[in-house]
Amino acid sequence: MPTNINPLKERLHEIIFEADTPAGKVFDVSLLVLIAASVLVVMLESVDPLQQRYSKIFTYLEWAFTIVFTIEYILRLYCVYRPMKYATSFFGIVDLLSILPTYLSLFVQGTHYLVVIRGLRLLRVFRILKLGHFLKEGDVIVRALMASRAKITVFLTFVMLATIIFGSVMYLVEGGSNDSFSSIPRSIYWAIVTLTTVGYGDITPATAIGQFLSAAIMILGYAIIAVPTGIVSAEFISELNSDRGTNTQACRYCGKEGHADDAVYCKYCGEILNEN
Amino acid sequence: MPTNINPLKERLHEIIFEADTPAGKVFDVSLLVLIAASVLVVMLESVDPLQQRYSKIFTYLEWAFTIVFTIEYILRLYCVYRPMKYATSFFGIVDLLSILPTYLSLFVQGTHYLVVIRGLRLLRVFRILKLGHFLKEGDVIVRALMASRAKITVFLTFVMLATIIFGSVMYLVEGGSNDSFSSIPRSIYWAIVTLTTVGYGDITPATAIGQFLSAAIMILGYAIIAVPTGIVSAEFISELNSDRGTNTQACRYCGKEGHADDAVYCKYCGEILNEN
Amino acid sequence: MPTNINPLKERLHEIIFEADTPAGKVFDVSLLVLIAASVLVVMLESVDPLQQRYSKIFTYLEWAFTIVFTIEYILRLYCVYRPMKYATSFFGIVDLLSILPTYLSLFVQGTHYLVVIRGLRLLRVFRILKLGHFLKEGDVIVRALMASRAKITVFLTFVMLATIIFGSVMYLVEGGSNDSFSSIPRSIYWAIVTLTTVGYGDITPATAIGQFLSAAIMILGYAIIAVPTGIVSAEFISELNSDRGTNTQACRYCGKEGHADDAVYCKYCGEILNEN
Amino acid sequence: MPTNINPLKERLHEIIFEADTPAGKVFDVSLLVLIAASVLVVMLESVDPLQQRYSKIFTYLEWAFTIVFTIEYILRLYCVYRPMKYATSFFGIVDLLSILPTYLSLFVQGTHYLVVIRGLRLLRVFRILKLGHFLKEGDVIVRALMASRAKITVFLTFVMLATIIFGSVMYLVEGGSNDSFSSIPRSIYWAIVTLTTVGYGDITPATAIGQFLSAAIMILGYAIIAVPTGIVSAEFISELNSDRGTNTQACRYCGKEGHADDAVYCKYCGEILNEN
Repeated sequence: MPTNINPLKERLHEIIFEADTPAGKVFDVSLLVLIAASVLVVMLESVDPLQQRYSKIFTYLEWAFTIVFTIEYILRLYCVYRPMKYATSFFGIVDLLSILPTYLSLFVQGTHYLVVIRGLRLLRVFRILKLGHFLKEGDVIVRALMASRAKITVFLTFVMLATIIFGSVMYLVEGGSNDSFSSIPRSIYWAIVTLTTVGYGDITPATAIGQFLSAAIMILGYAIIAVPTGIVSAEFISELNSDRGTNTQACRYCGKEGHADDAVYCKYCGEILNEN
Repeated sequence: MPTNINPLKERLHEIIFEADTPAGKVFDVSLLVLIAASVLVVMLESVDPLQQRYSKIFTYLEWAFTIVFTIEYILRLYCVYRPMKYATSFFGIVDLLSILPTYLSLFVQGTHYLVVIRGLRLLRVFRILKLGHFLKEGDVIVRALMASRAKITVFLTFVMLATIIFGSVMYLVEGGSNDSFSSIPRSIYWAIVTLTTVGYGDITPATAIGQFLSAAIMILGYAIIAVPTGIVSAEFISELNSDRGTNTQACRYCGKEGHADDAVYCKYCGEILNEN
Repeated sequence: MPTNINPLKERLHEIIFEADTPAGKVFDVSLLVLIAASVLVVMLESVDPLQQRYSKIFTYLEWAFTIVFTIEYILRLYCVYRPMKYATSFFGIVDLLSILPTYLSLFVQGTHYLVVIRGLRLLRVFRILKLGHFLKEGDVIVRALMASRAKITVFLTFVMLATIIFGSVMYLVEGGSNDSFSSIPRSIYWAIVTLTTVGYGDITPATAIGQFLSAAIMILGYAIIAVPTGIVSAEFISELNSDRGTNTQACRYCGKEGHADDAVYCKYCGEILNEN
Repeated sequence: MPTNINPLKERLHEIIFEADTPAGKVFDVSLLVLIAASVLVVMLESVDPLQQRYSKIFTYLEWAFTIVFTIEYILRLYCVYRPMKYATSFFGIVDLLSILPTYLSLFVQGTHYLVVIRGLRLLRVFRILKLGHFLKEGDVIVRALMASRAKITVFLTFVMLATIIFGSVMYLVEGGSNDSFSSIPRSIYWAIVTLTTVGYGDITPATAIGQFLSAAIMILGYAIIAVPTGIVSAEFISELNSDRGTNTQACRYCGKEGHADDAVYCKYCGEILNEN
């Protein structure tokens, strides 16, 4: 923190980055409303009949939102203590990506639809509305996914290779008589659609042997869909246990918690836990 | 409970709200049959060939059921000790909503189909048929879902934002050459159909890059479908453990808990657990 | 067991019901092959081009199999100690149902396809090939499903009522403009196809509001698909724990097993478990 | 290991089988790149427009890759200590299968697409890039699947028999009026597509009773999809518990195990656990 405090910067920081003061709360809630409105506008703009009638209004609104968000981004950079740290944080990057597409659309047509990335800014809602409880739960999800990252990577690598092989075999089997399986990449797309049980039905086997193979792949997919679920479930249970599992009793000597329910001595300092 | 007991009210309450007396049981079972019949009539009424032939009968039956249920609702309000408490309870609201659509259909055509909400009244079956066991299990489900409410809210918020972004990207990629992706809202609908692995196939990617992106979204969906399952599984396991496993009895000598249900002696100090 | 043992009956019982003697093993394996062959014949018989060419052969084979199985059923009834107990057991009923459809087809055309129920007789394979290990695992699955029966019944009741209500609402919303939602029963069929994430795509919403509602139902389905999985997972884990969890050490005094890993004293007789 | 060490063999072995020396690392990474390139070439070759233009180049590349991989395979056989052990190992078999299809394509047209099996050689990436962590996690997945093998076999046997019976019943119900259910094998294919919730929609029930039966099968499938997930989840949790939670260190004084990773003192007798 700098020693020579700039009161304007201080005030702005309080309003923009915090939601504890009335002004900060008003700012944050207005911002959420603006973001939601701007995402809605982009979505409606893509609907042809609406676009034809309100084309002008949509463009005006789009630019108005973008200019407001640009000013906000500059102010954030100005009033934060360490601008680079903000700019490279998750929300800093999202804030920047939220305004770029509109400017980009001056050069490349259509790209302004990408402003829907603004939606991610709405994740601030949990912090602003003091739903810290939810943030903590979100952390648990992220933690469980991070803990199972390596297992899921290995699993997805295997699934990817399996879809390449299944796709190629189906291309050999169906390719000749079925226009849907016109190339290996398309057959791999089919294999992914099938293994994940999405099953559009835009590409389906037509020959008896193709249907037999597909059925085998589905049964296999049925068994392996259990794998990621099992991995993540195990992590969630482990998270839950490390939360609960141990009791809340604190050692009278060293004050540490987290003792197993059947512990007699503090595992940190060796003192007896409860003498009665 | 009022001191001046009205014997008619008492008797009615016993019949309508309880299922212990023969009269109460007869009333409740007849009610279940009537409800099931009335839902069936509405369903059949919507089938065109049947509607053309039995139109009159359906209308008569529909009104007959509604009048019976209206009288029943008024009697419930009359004989219950605290009418407001009943009227605002889950079943009180369902009972009211079950009769309104028919009256509403006098003003707005077609709304009488909404009487299928009567189906929810059938949930009383577990109480009436003394299937208390099932009610308790239903409570466990509700409890597990409530305990994971915050996590699921955060997860669904994330999924929602992800579908908005995926939908918009696919609109950019496919929109030009594929009539199916005609607007962002439609593309978001596609993204939800895909991520939840429903996969109707009414909207499917046609370009190579669109299919590649879809495949990536499916693989992602495959991994994240594990999240809600993991969350809820963890809660169920935690519910089950707190129910069964070990009892809460403490040894009188060493004070330790965590004894198995069939334990006779304390597993920590060897003293007898319960002498009776 | 009768005191006057009939040696023919004894011998037949050994061959037919047991798989320990060479003759018994030969009988059982031949039976499995016959059953598999007869199911295969019925399946091929339903394929039109094959049926037109081999119609006669199929009919001969079909009757040959049925007569063999009928003789076998009568012999089973004859040589078993308590015929009624066998006749009312799972395999006894399956054995009877496996021969009835062919005789029934003399009166009602087409019913002979139901002989595929013979397939269930193949479940004997695990016993015959001494795959007792698999039988035990099958028991675990059945036990886990039985233990979660009540929860799953409540859950399916709720899902059923939900599909009735969703289907009716979608009939109101889509019914007018979309021929697919032509009646409430059809709409309920759609709701089940959607909630279970099967998603054929034979009935799909066409209006914007219908697609919005469908998306909401899918997201809901996404969350509630976690419920049965969570229920069953919890039961499996509980099964696994009751198997493992406790160690295999037996008390030297009372000989009982099932002690927790951290137990010092036998929880049944109070003696010290291991002195070293 | 032979006593008379052949230095060329030694050197080759170091380069080809190990990734610790610079030369070995260069060899392994080049190999990965070659494999990925060759799989990509085969995939592109199957795309008609590309095939028509670059047909010759594809054939040259294909043979170049195959010759390189053949030389590599021979060198591996030459320099390894026990050639038979390598030739019958997982990677040995994959290495051989990776080159055979090209040679086979001289006799049977189209089979060279099977070289995509080379993709499996990419699994070496985890070892080469020293991602041992991932290999270990892969082992956990394999172990969990092996542990649940018997349960999953029993479950899939049951599912298979169920699809045969459902398929035959649907053939009886729909076969007459619906061309899609033209034979029992096709109906079984439909049953598998439905039970696994893939739901292509290429075969769908058309009659009211067929749709009712399908809905019942889906609801059943909804309940039983929970079974494999439950089985695998339980195994993963069991794996996780035996890995983490507590370490295997025993107290030197009371000999008890099951101490948490961060424990300093024995929780049973209060002595210090490890003094270093």
